[in-house]
Amino acid sequence: MFRYVVRVRYGDTDQMGFAYYANYLHWFEIGRAEMMRSLGMSYRAIEESGIQLPVMEAHCRYLEPARYDDEVAIETGVAHLGRARVHFGYRIVRVSDGALLAHGGTEHCCLDRQGKPVRPPAHLVALVSQAPRASSPHSVSKKA
Amino acid sequence: MFRYVVRVRYGDTDQMGFAYYANYLHWFEIGRAEMMRSLGMSYRAIEESGIQLPVMEAHCRYLEPARYDDEVAIETGVAHLGRARVHFGYRIVRVSDGALLAHGGTEHCCLDRQGKPVRPPAHLVALVSQAPRASSPHSVSKKA
Amino acid sequence: MFRYVVRVRYGDTDQMGFAYYANYLHWFEIGRAEMMRSLGMSYRAIEESGIQLPVMEAHCRYLEPARYDDEVAIETGVAHLGRARVHFGYRIVRVSDGALLAHGGTEHCCLDRQGKPVRPPAHLVALVSQAPRASSPHSVSKKA
Amino acid sequence: MFRYVVRVRYGDTDQMGFAYYANYLHWFEIGRAEMMRSLGMSYRAIEESGIQLPVMEAHCRYLEPARYDDEVAIETGVAHLGRARVHFGYRIVRVSDGALLAHGGTEHCCLDRQGKPVRPPAHLVALVSQAPRASSPHSVSKKA
Repeated sequence: MFRYVVRVRYGDTDQMGFAYYANYLHWFEIGRAEMMRSLGMSYRAIEESGIQLPVMEAHCRYLEPARYDDEVAIETGVAHLGRARVHFGYRIVRVSDGALLAHGGTEHCCLDRQGKPVRPPAHLVALVSQAPRASSPHSVSKKA
Repeated sequence: MFRYVVRVRYGDTDQMGFAYYANYLHWFEIGRAEMMRSLGMSYRAIEESGIQLPVMEAHCRYLEPARYDDEVAIETGVAHLGRARVHFGYRIVRVSDGALLAHGGTEHCCLDRQGKPVRPPAHLVALVSQAPRASSPHSVSKKA
Repeated sequence: MFRYVVRVRYGDTDQMGFAYYANYLHWFEIGRAEMMRSLGMSYRAIEESGIQLPVMEAHCRYLEPARYDDEVAIETGVAHLGRARVHFGYRIVRVSDGALLAHGGTEHCCLDRQGKPVRPPAHLVALVSQAPRASSPHSVSKKA
Repeated sequence: MFRYVVRVRYGDTDQMGFAYYANYLHWFEIGRAEMMRSLGMSYRAIEESGIQLPVMEAHCRYLEPARYDDEVAIETGVAHLGRARVHFGYRIVRVSDGALLAHGGTEHCCLDRQGKPVRPPAHLVALVSQAPRASSPHSVSKKA
């Protein structure tokens, strides 16, 4: 899977001392954006080409908390590429010891400029087809 | 289900003009906090009694976008009360026309002050047992 | 000043146990939006009429922390209405005891649909002219 | 000044298509945390040593908008080191063309574990004394 490292910010924590659960969805966004960039087309360029990929479904399972200033690796892959939908899979891994903190997924549809559902254009299908596969959430993470 | 109305803030929107997907998890938090309060014990009081209910899993399905300044009703109920877990269900409904915008759920475990998993204490079980049931996500919402 | 009450959400807190400092700017946004609504025109309607009021400057002084589940009153008034700028003033007051937690201000310019600076249209000037004045930050707050 | 680059996330934007104004305070937090780390002691280590540096005041002037996926450099320096307070200064610079997007500052006091104001301990004074000075907000930014 594609790996991108971020740090837990102070503003991401809550009074339990952990990263608040909604922040993982921000990390998933960073993961898929950076994976697309690594494939050769940024999500900004995709939107500028007239295509939006809004989220239809999101889920996350939280295994261990992320704490302030922890480096966490966002691992992203494509779990499924359908005719009108794309599913991304994610793993959040603590960099210091490789512990799996969370895993999840998002499902996206494809809209044109008018907000009408469309089949993904060929250049997007070609791009996503080259993406790393989302591995099983519990497979062993290789440390950076 | 228990109903609590909030407004979409400017800071909740993204450049698509919609409420960003992570904000729904903030709304779910508001929904369960206000439902607990309505049952007679705030989540703050639960934490002060020595119990934390961290989120183990969260999911959300997005059907229609929420827009800036929309009033959205957060409908919250208990979907399942197990020996060590509690599941909440949520529906996000646009107040102006009753449209179902999203539905989802969260699963929580019960930790003591030392962060050790424990069975929910009797007072918490009694409280949650009185909560409204989470209805099927697609059942008809009664408008306010 | 115009008064609007919100609660500190769990996701607003940080690991110090206080509302994170950036959240006060979200509260200021809520304060000015609800004050405009109370005057008869929502900020959404202002934007739909072709005018945007982006923030040019923001500041906040933090006196005492806001904690999870605290009710805080956002008090909003107009501090200055110039030919091309409007300044709002804010006070954040803890509802339980009337303590002043923070005070601050924002300065806004006026843009048309093309993003060009313009003088505020007459209907906006008329609206803002009726707004409560921002009182000195340290004046006594009347409890709800 | 110390320079650290981040990207504008989708979730940072609002429906104007710009980074929402409260996010700049998150960037300031990242800037001072990374500057402290570069000096040899992370803010996490400072907190673990028993000292907290809560924000007493924050301000930001917004000159040009930051847009989705823009790389922005957070430039951080110490503007003033008093007996009980430290002031940081910040500049937010668009990496692509070096444009100054915003500048601002924060003022912090020093608290011990009991939340009592204390003078900064010698190791913290020594650390902050080595920090780059905050230059005038409008001085020319050197591109990375």
